[in-house]
Amino acid sequence: MTYFDNAATTYPKPHAVLWEMQKAMIRYGANPGRGGHEMALAAAKAVYAARAALSDLFDLGAPERVIFTQNCTQALNMVIKGLARPGGHFICSNLEHNAVARPLEALRRRGVCNWDAAAVGGSDTETLSAFDACFRPETVAVVCTGASNVFGRVLPLEQLAQLAHSHGVPLVADLAQTAGLLPVSLQKSGIDFACCPGHKGLYGPMGTGVLLCNSDARLETLLEGGTGTLSMQLVQPEAYPERLESGTLNVPGIAGLAAGAAFVRRLGPETIFAHEMRLAKEIADGLSEMPRVRLYTDFHNRAQRFVPLVSFNIAGMHSEEVGAALASHGFAVRAGLHCAPLAHRAYGTLDTGTVRVCPSVFSAEKDVKSLLNCIFQIAKRQGV
Amino acid sequence: MTYFDNAATTYPKPHAVLWEMQKAMIRYGANPGRGGHEMALAAAKAVYAARAALSDLFDLGAPERVIFTQNCTQALNMVIKGLARPGGHFICSNLEHNAVARPLEALRRRGVCNWDAAAVGGSDTETLSAFDACFRPETVAVVCTGASNVFGRVLPLEQLAQLAHSHGVPLVADLAQTAGLLPVSLQKSGIDFACCPGHKGLYGPMGTGVLLCNSDARLETLLEGGTGTLSMQLVQPEAYPERLESGTLNVPGIAGLAAGAAFVRRLGPETIFAHEMRLAKEIADGLSEMPRVRLYTDFHNRAQRFVPLVSFNIAGMHSEEVGAALASHGFAVRAGLHCAPLAHRAYGTLDTGTVRVCPSVFSAEKDVKSLLNCIFQIAKRQGV
Repeated sequence: MTYFDNAATTYPKPHAVLWEMQKAMIRYGANPGRGGHEMALAAAKAVYAARAALSDLFDLGAPERVIFTQNCTQALNMVIKGLARPGGHFICSNLEHNAVARPLEALRRRGVCNWDAAAVGGSDTETLSAFDACFRPETVAVVCTGASNVFGRVLPLEQLAQLAHSHGVPLVADLAQTAGLLPVSLQKSGIDFACCPGHKGLYGPMGTGVLLCNSDARLETLLEGGTGTLSMQLVQPEAYPERLESGTLNVPGIAGLAAGAAFVRRLGPETIFAHEMRLAKEIADGLSEMPRVRLYTDFHNRAQRFVPLVSFNIAGMHSEEVGAALASHGFAVRAGLHCAPLAHRAYGTLDTGTVRVCPSVFSAEKDVKSLLNCIFQIAKRQGV
Repeated sequence: MTYFDNAATTYPKPHAVLWEMQKAMIRYGANPGRGGHEMALAAAKAVYAARAALSDLFDLGAPERVIFTQNCTQALNMVIKGLARPGGHFICSNLEHNAVARPLEALRRRGVCNWDAAAVGGSDTETLSAFDACFRPETVAVVCTGASNVFGRVLPLEQLAQLAHSHGVPLVADLAQTAGLLPVSLQKSGIDFACCPGHKGLYGPMGTGVLLCNSDARLETLLEGGTGTLSMQLVQPEAYPERLESGTLNVPGIAGLAAGAAFVRRLGPETIFAHEMRLAKEIADGLSEMPRVRLYTDFHNRAQRFVPLVSFNIAGMHSEEVGAALASHGFAVRAGLHCAPLAHRAYGTLDTGTVRVCPSVFSAEKDVKSLLNCIFQIAKRQGV
């Protein structure tokens, strides 16, 4: 099986990720909790090292403000609901994943907050104007994806942070498709809260996510429970990370994530991006020459930036038919709506979905060629 | 290091747990999501097999109602807040962990719900009376631990379920210390919602938890996001498990948990309980003969049931000093409040905490003897 489904989760993982997970299970399989015995301390040390590695990678400058979650979705729920105030209002883009849209819609249906989706324009300037027009006196935050998980379109997070700040509210960034690919300095960019999956561009295992808190805005807690600190009190502690981390942490997962982040750091997000973009452009160029193929990711548009991810369709076929045909030839891609109905509405692909192809740092050029050949054959058969 | 901190997390894990985690990372490292290619289907199949294994172990009879969470705390938050209604009221015991008490207290401080803690009595009959006296017309649920994580005292969950039902409300059980040890049939017991850590008596890895929904009571969602189903709609689906599972699952963790549950099933919770209880009684008997040692777990009390877990103190020493002294001799135990201030208040140990010793199925009698010897030496030194 040739794997091009890396926007869902990267595969394979670096060997060090597997090794560190095993090590966590075997050498320090205790619950870190508070203080205590040798193995609990070793586990706590490993968790702290992971916080430090992620704080470094994102230039957060505060390991204790690296919060471990089960996935990016949990991180987004924690920030969105942590910032929600009765009568409040959120602004997001019209390319958001359901991990942003559904929590916002849940708040709306509960009568807590309203939300508007700003239409992403042909250029960043247009996009920023669209966001600007959505602000209301009651707006509490802007929530925006770093890049569309369907079309790869990159959004101007740094400028959006400036815009949000000019209106006195924080910017929450969903880095699901950009973490580990587009380098970011949280301290310089002004992004207030960044939510990342651990298992995509950071090459950690599924079951890991991170919330990076680059803001003093106080988050109301979504989950409370044992923190191993201030156990006497029935109120969640104020101090980070405990305030936002209740119950036992995914220690083996976090150890694996730290290894993944170290791998990304060593290679450099720029190098990884360059490799993947070369392959993604080759895929896009190949597809653009095929009859019956409709390509939705336009790397040649100089007014727009993209992550290395390609969405396409074949005329007369539902995206899932194309996905199934590719699967039967041993290619793993993802087809359908990719949990992002807003983005498909914006691009007019709500009926068919799209076929999404996404390389990773481990993808090889020869596999791109055979993928293109296979798509060509499928499209040709359809044309007969 | 000799490990007796199994109430925090069991260590070591069965080999199959480590192997299944590796297999998940290597052989089917794709995101299960919806449909699609071979490896995504294999991951989905493994996750479903884990649901089926847990549904069987707890006689739930509904694999789709096995919800995977990051930990038991998250499961408890999901049920408690899922059942909360403005003006509502919860009843719990006075032995609850902060995983129950803090979410309840958060609801109270937000002005959503009130709660009362029923005092656990000298016998189950007294305990049931205490719970009964707490009901109010606005009570929405009873939340109760299966056994105190500090003192091992077992609570009568089945009778509490009957009591709750007689008042028309569901019983939510925190099985943190009993899952895998005390066999339970959810279908027969009437327990409506059961929350379990995956990494204690079920011998899975840290980072896993389970919510078992044996009730049609509709839970309001705490987390929303991508589910891979009904992606077109911005509202969380109604169908289980998707309604309560948003974002990417911890596939390697779940695969490990399935192996842990299979291990427990094969040995049988009764056999595991018998082994651990033999060791726990030996520890308690040994401690009860030591001068200066105060034992809080009384296995000889015939009116009370216990899980194999022993709490004690040495006169004149804070529990954490004892824990540190044991750690310096290579014994891993846990000292302090164990995130359960309510229980310590009930037992009058809020100032010192307690030292908690908990064997697992892998604990050996020779280690019990050397542990007792070490505690004896520490207590003797203190007596000088």
